[in-house]
Amino acid sequence: MARDYQLVAQTLTEALPYIQRFHGKTVVIKYGGSSMVDQDLKRSTAKDVVLMRYVGMNVIIVHGGGPQVSEVMRRMGKEPQFVNGLRVTDAETMQIAEMVLTGTTNKEIVRDLMLAGGHAVGISGKDGGLLRARKMEAEVDLGFVGEVEEVCPDVLRALMEKGYTVVLSTVAADAAGQSYNINADHAAGAVAAAVKAEKLISLTDVSGIMRDPEDTGSLVSRLTVEEARELLAAGVIASGMIPKVESCITAVEGGVPRAHIIDGRMPHSLLIETFTNAGIGTMIEG
Amino acid sequence: MARDYQLVAQTLTEALPYIQRFHGKTVVIKYGGSSMVDQDLKRSTAKDVVLMRYVGMNVIIVHGGGPQVSEVMRRMGKEPQFVNGLRVTDAETMQIAEMVLTGTTNKEIVRDLMLAGGHAVGISGKDGGLLRARKMEAEVDLGFVGEVEEVCPDVLRALMEKGYTVVLSTVAADAAGQSYNINADHAAGAVAAAVKAEKLISLTDVSGIMRDPEDTGSLVSRLTVEEARELLAAGVIASGMIPKVESCITAVEGGVPRAHIIDGRMPHSLLIETFTNAGIGTMIEG
Amino acid sequence: MARDYQLVAQTLTEALPYIQRFHGKTVVIKYGGSSMVDQDLKRSTAKDVVLMRYVGMNVIIVHGGGPQVSEVMRRMGKEPQFVNGLRVTDAETMQIAEMVLTGTTNKEIVRDLMLAGGHAVGISGKDGGLLRARKMEAEVDLGFVGEVEEVCPDVLRALMEKGYTVVLSTVAADAAGQSYNINADHAAGAVAAAVKAEKLISLTDVSGIMRDPEDTGSLVSRLTVEEARELLAAGVIASGMIPKVESCITAVEGGVPRAHIIDGRMPHSLLIETFTNAGIGTMIEG
Amino acid sequence: MARDYQLVAQTLTEALPYIQRFHGKTVVIKYGGSSMVDQDLKRSTAKDVVLMRYVGMNVIIVHGGGPQVSEVMRRMGKEPQFVNGLRVTDAETMQIAEMVLTGTTNKEIVRDLMLAGGHAVGISGKDGGLLRARKMEAEVDLGFVGEVEEVCPDVLRALMEKGYTVVLSTVAADAAGQSYNINADHAAGAVAAAVKAEKLISLTDVSGIMRDPEDTGSLVSRLTVEEARELLAAGVIASGMIPKVESCITAVEGGVPRAHIIDGRMPHSLLIETFTNAGIGTMIEG
Amino acid sequence: MARDYQLVAQTLTEALPYIQRFHGKTVVIKYGGSSMVDQDLKRSTAKDVVLMRYVGMNVIIVHGGGPQVSEVMRRMGKEPQFVNGLRVTDAETMQIAEMVLTGTTNKEIVRDLMLAGGHAVGISGKDGGLLRARKMEAEVDLGFVGEVEEVCPDVLRALMEKGYTVVLSTVAADAAGQSYNINADHAAGAVAAAVKAEKLISLTDVSGIMRDPEDTGSLVSRLTVEEARELLAAGVIASGMIPKVESCITAVEGGVPRAHIIDGRMPHSLLIETFTNAGIGTMIEG
Amino acid sequence: MARDYQLVAQTLTEALPYIQRFHGKTVVIKYGGSSMVDQDLKRSTAKDVVLMRYVGMNVIIVHGGGPQVSEVMRRMGKEPQFVNGLRVTDAETMQIAEMVLTGTTNKEIVRDLMLAGGHAVGISGKDGGLLRARKMEAEVDLGFVGEVEEVCPDVLRALMEKGYTVVLSTVAADAAGQSYNINADHAAGAVAAAVKAEKLISLTDVSGIMRDPEDTGSLVSRLTVEEARELLAAGVIASGMIPKVESCITAVEGGVPRAHIIDGRMPHSLLIETFTNAGIGTMIEG
Repeated sequence: MARDYQLVAQTLTEALPYIQRFHGKTVVIKYGGSSMVDQDLKRSTAKDVVLMRYVGMNVIIVHGGGPQVSEVMRRMGKEPQFVNGLRVTDAETMQIAEMVLTGTTNKEIVRDLMLAGGHAVGISGKDGGLLRARKMEAEVDLGFVGEVEEVCPDVLRALMEKGYTVVLSTVAADAAGQSYNINADHAAGAVAAAVKAEKLISLTDVSGIMRDPEDTGSLVSRLTVEEARELLAAGVIASGMIPKVESCITAVEGGVPRAHIIDGRMPHSLLIETFTNAGIGTMIEG
Repeated sequence: MARDYQLVAQTLTEALPYIQRFHGKTVVIKYGGSSMVDQDLKRSTAKDVVLMRYVGMNVIIVHGGGPQVSEVMRRMGKEPQFVNGLRVTDAETMQIAEMVLTGTTNKEIVRDLMLAGGHAVGISGKDGGLLRARKMEAEVDLGFVGEVEEVCPDVLRALMEKGYTVVLSTVAADAAGQSYNINADHAAGAVAAAVKAEKLISLTDVSGIMRDPEDTGSLVSRLTVEEARELLAAGVIASGMIPKVESCITAVEGGVPRAHIIDGRMPHSLLIETFTNAGIGTMIEG
Repeated sequence: MARDYQLVAQTLTEALPYIQRFHGKTVVIKYGGSSMVDQDLKRSTAKDVVLMRYVGMNVIIVHGGGPQVSEVMRRMGKEPQFVNGLRVTDAETMQIAEMVLTGTTNKEIVRDLMLAGGHAVGISGKDGGLLRARKMEAEVDLGFVGEVEEVCPDVLRALMEKGYTVVLSTVAADAAGQSYNINADHAAGAVAAAVKAEKLISLTDVSGIMRDPEDTGSLVSRLTVEEARELLAAGVIASGMIPKVESCITAVEGGVPRAHIIDGRMPHSLLIETFTNAGIGTMIEG
Repeated sequence: MARDYQLVAQTLTEALPYIQRFHGKTVVIKYGGSSMVDQDLKRSTAKDVVLMRYVGMNVIIVHGGGPQVSEVMRRMGKEPQFVNGLRVTDAETMQIAEMVLTGTTNKEIVRDLMLAGGHAVGISGKDGGLLRARKMEAEVDLGFVGEVEEVCPDVLRALMEKGYTVVLSTVAADAAGQSYNINADHAAGAVAAAVKAEKLISLTDVSGIMRDPEDTGSLVSRLTVEEARELLAAGVIASGMIPKVESCITAVEGGVPRAHIIDGRMPHSLLIETFTNAGIGTMIEG
Repeated sequence: MARDYQLVAQTLTEALPYIQRFHGKTVVIKYGGSSMVDQDLKRSTAKDVVLMRYVGMNVIIVHGGGPQVSEVMRRMGKEPQFVNGLRVTDAETMQIAEMVLTGTTNKEIVRDLMLAGGHAVGISGKDGGLLRARKMEAEVDLGFVGEVEEVCPDVLRALMEKGYTVVLSTVAADAAGQSYNINADHAAGAVAAAVKAEKLISLTDVSGIMRDPEDTGSLVSRLTVEEARELLAAGVIASGMIPKVESCITAVEGGVPRAHIIDGRMPHSLLIETFTNAGIGTMIEG
Repeated sequence: MARDYQLVAQTLTEALPYIQRFHGKTVVIKYGGSSMVDQDLKRSTAKDVVLMRYVGMNVIIVHGGGPQVSEVMRRMGKEPQFVNGLRVTDAETMQIAEMVLTGTTNKEIVRDLMLAGGHAVGISGKDGGLLRARKMEAEVDLGFVGEVEEVCPDVLRALMEKGYTVVLSTVAADAAGQSYNINADHAAGAVAAAVKAEKLISLTDVSGIMRDPEDTGSLVSRLTVEEARELLAAGVIASGMIPKVESCITAVEGGVPRAHIIDGRMPHSLLIETFTNAGIGTMIEG
């Protein structure tokens, strides 16, 4: 018997230095991609988050949900349209997006956390005036696609203080009450900066930033903000990775010591990143 | 000039005894019907609630949204079905109901309160484990129609303590994580009892309980719980009024001193009920 | 029925923006003149103050009481004497003034607030070392006429924190324990500055500052501190209005955003000033 | 040198057990007679009270002031009248009594405490609704002579919590706002019971209760409540001593462990009673 | 890479239910035997305790140290003597025992915890009046061998509230200040009851309670208090195991749900007992 | 009777200004020499400290204990060795020193304070990471003689906040866990600076600093830090007085207003210094 349990105990004590380092700190997790779709991954991610809470970390999960929105749109007879990867968002699309993100996706995550033994509260950017939106400026009018004008983190603090993990859908209103859909990566970066998070972790469907997307051996382990900007300018970071890297830059420039882009397809990647010295994915720092 | 402002001042001082009585107390409002649809009524109700908060009351708004659910169902090509006034709720209907109630209706109310100058947070029964559901027992299997098994009001207290008005959609999960749609009237009564509210106010589309529904002169101003039960048994209280009266009985038997069924079609009916001696609608007490 | 109650409700909601603006803020009221003598005005003022408290404002009432002092002096066979409008205050007069202001006038106001449903505590400048006095420098020796040397607002905070409205008579002692009578207008300005009040309201027997005291149409609605000083220098502001304007200047220069001189003879003038956009009287700002 | 300072130090350490016993406890002092008139005694009493506060006791001083009231009455041309030792109190007398007790006597005590280095706040029974009065029932109508109907000690707690010593004049109002003069001994007993004081000390002009008032050797050191009642019934306790003993009985029956009647003419009698084992005066216990 | 880290992550999530169960609870650990002597075991135990603290448990370590005391006695030329396994404790022995237990052993444990990243404070039963001793009644006079008369856990609460792990040597004084050496097992049981611990864990040099001490297969996994008493009476539990079992009985009868006797020679036995379902050693419950 | 008690009362009131000055302030007492050995002096010092606590001061006692260490060393067959007055501290000596200082001396002081009615907790520099040591740099290697590298006063604050007097033995560890013996005078100065004490009092076996050690009339009452440095440089301050004066300089330069070197052989010297104007010993100030 003793053999296996010894391993358990040894593992726990090896995690101790990491637990100590993050005790009482806030971590913002951008949740998206496969880790939000695959049933096993969803369960393992929920367990990871609940564990992070129990060892003393405050966790804010910021989630997207584009595929789910598109699916409901199609069921309602409306074909999703995109320009440069951004969803064209007319009034009806906006309504569907809010309905799906805040009413379905958000509550599924809350439910998963509850089943894993956690205490979570799901809100949108409208609640407690958390996110103030403004229309995103773009060459083409994309409709109700917004960006974060201001973060008022009071409601996050009120909930974290009482031990709740917060799940956030990134729909927000402008001062006139008009709803906007905000890119979840961007919102996560702004929220991480506003709450002075200890780190931002972005769960993605890739291993991290690649110098050559075709070559998995070209993973970049560590980047400064400056280097990240250069890779963006050089086009090495492209397409869906762009908002993720921008989000990390926003966070780090806003005072978050480290931002991580990791592979959410790997089970327990959150725990491995947080409680081991595995050094997975790409870390961006100041 | 002075004439009009005098009237304002006099009105304010006449409301003073009512303000004193409810200062620091919690009021649960069941929000539904026209007051939740008509734009002017929505705005006036939001102002009423914000005022109630500013004079020191804690407000919890429990809302339904059946018509909105039916409308989206139809847009998704699904015809709503009802048995004895209860919606037949298969898995797809359940998903649509949650999406609409929690994702659309709830956030519209939060937005209205924000525009009226309030600070509101919208949650569902799943958040913070607020409502635990179980399948409603019924002669006919209605699918995912649930009832309240338990109320854990911690998240309400955490939010009210920080000055937020809470807006609650009555979707909840059972211990296994299965979602159920709960009648909003019933949920409001259970929540009012759980937070030891000072009163429950149900906004409806009628003037109150009528001894003869055809005769508006037959309004009953005041009922004991016992009398209410008798009217239910006698079939005088029928159809949509049944859950509202049951909700009031649940609240009063759970320790809420008074429950009111009032006419939400009348602008500012909440303020009139709360801050004047008009005595509108029907009051049920212990 | 509905008609009248609608008006009530509408009035309440129109006051909402003002309630929001002053929620949690401190207001210092200089109480004097007719509003302190006429029975109906006393009652309506007390109701106004209690309402202000219930909608979340902290209220400090600073009162004078010269006529009452003179009356008791005469009953004790002592003829009041004045030089340039200031009472000649020998030891006996000082004793009578303290007795009347602190023992009679102050407690009458406390009683009126209690009858209106409020919770008030009446103190003098001696209590808790609130006001430290020094002899006023003047060309003629006026005896125990003092001015404010220092304000220690701890006792005000202790009482307001527990929800009490404070009523203050402006008798204070110097470091040696000698009592001085301090002009209530001056004391109100100093207290307003010391507690960082949101506004100072001076209840008087005139409509406000007049460019031509003979012409009621010459009311000045709004003045900067600089303009107020010019009107003082030019003698436009004269006699009893001088200390009121000086008090406003002290307050505004001490960080109080706005000071108001309004007509206490008009019932509910406090509420009208605070909760409507009537813009009565004269407002002095920075 | 060392000799004298040794004595100082030894004295301090001998007081230690008494300091420990009363640390954090509340003591109510009924202040009256010579100790309130003689300048030296006033100063020494003030020092005693300030010391009691600094070694951790909460002190409430309840004072009378009959002679001062009579003096002002005479100066206003009104001859004091008494029936069975109780002042006939018509409306004018009531006004004078309140004015003198609350406006003069109370503030003199506050001033004395301030000069001795203390922080005191003087209030009357009207403030914060501390004492609710009702007309005293008596065979002869004495006018506005009242008795304590109810004590609401919130304002005492608010002030003591912040370290203030409270000085209380025993004028109070009934529910209709009518003022009554309340016997200070009676009020002190009721207040001591309401705040669960550790002891009540009554400063008088005699050495304590005498079995034979003519014989100073007949001092009774210790009485149970029952014995005190017997001495009252037997007429041994007579005249001005009656309310003092009644006050002690009220206190002890209300849960105060010990009540003391001591000689306020002896300098520092408060300290001697509190911090030595001298056992001066008469102690009444349950 | 992923393989090993996956194991780490999986191990952590498997510990989650145990972490949840003990979060915020207090655990008393009786520390003794090999785990307190062997350098590797000392280090692993310290890590275990620090981890327990970081996942939200309050830990109190109660330690013995008999061998260390005997060793110093011998170095000081004094041969230890025992009667029925209890040390004969004359004044000099008492002094040595206190010196060693409180001055050496206690601080070594504090140091080990510090090196493992913890925050610990070491005290004895004398500090803050934590343990009140009285002379143990015995047939033979053993000198200054005491037992616990009373536990005053205030100092434990003060330290745990601030996040410190408390290390306790079981030397205590009686009311007269005389020192006594108290059996650490007994003290641990009394402390666990006094702080309403969630469990008591006794680290020993055996696998648990054996029905047949010669037969390691006769380990008893689970005992009720009643059964434990029977085994004591039957002599099955004997010698050094007696005080350990008595300690568990004291704890469980004092309201501690479970007490465990486990094998401290196994590395990380604390973690294995607490965070796995291994079920090592013997558990005594109510 | 009255005569003696009057003296008591007068003495108490004369101490009042000193009590007021130190109320709520922290005082660090370096305890050593005769006052720590002589039974009567120990008792009187304990009473003094308890009194200081009861009149509202926070007290930290930092003690040495060299003679006691030497005595136990000799009993263990080890001859103490000194170089320039500093103990040569090999590993065994270090162990004995810690054992005696933390296990015996510290707890005797805790016991004395308890018997005098106080609540004390004794800790060493290791507890709560209070003192971080480093090897003292010296010309000759003295072994484990350390100096204070850093003070982390959290544990002191936690204990004082709950009303405990802290007794501190000055053994501490470096980052690697190695124990060092730290000069108690030096530690006292560093602690006084770290907690922003109001004063440091060093109890010694001399009357204070002498310009001529042979001439008791040459006592220096008052020194600036600068003057103290000059006397050190000039060799006027020599031998055992050196660390005491250095300690005072550390304290005063660290923000402690005054440091006193007084004669602990005089009973109640602490009280005389603190609560009278006797001005004993030498005071060093900024």
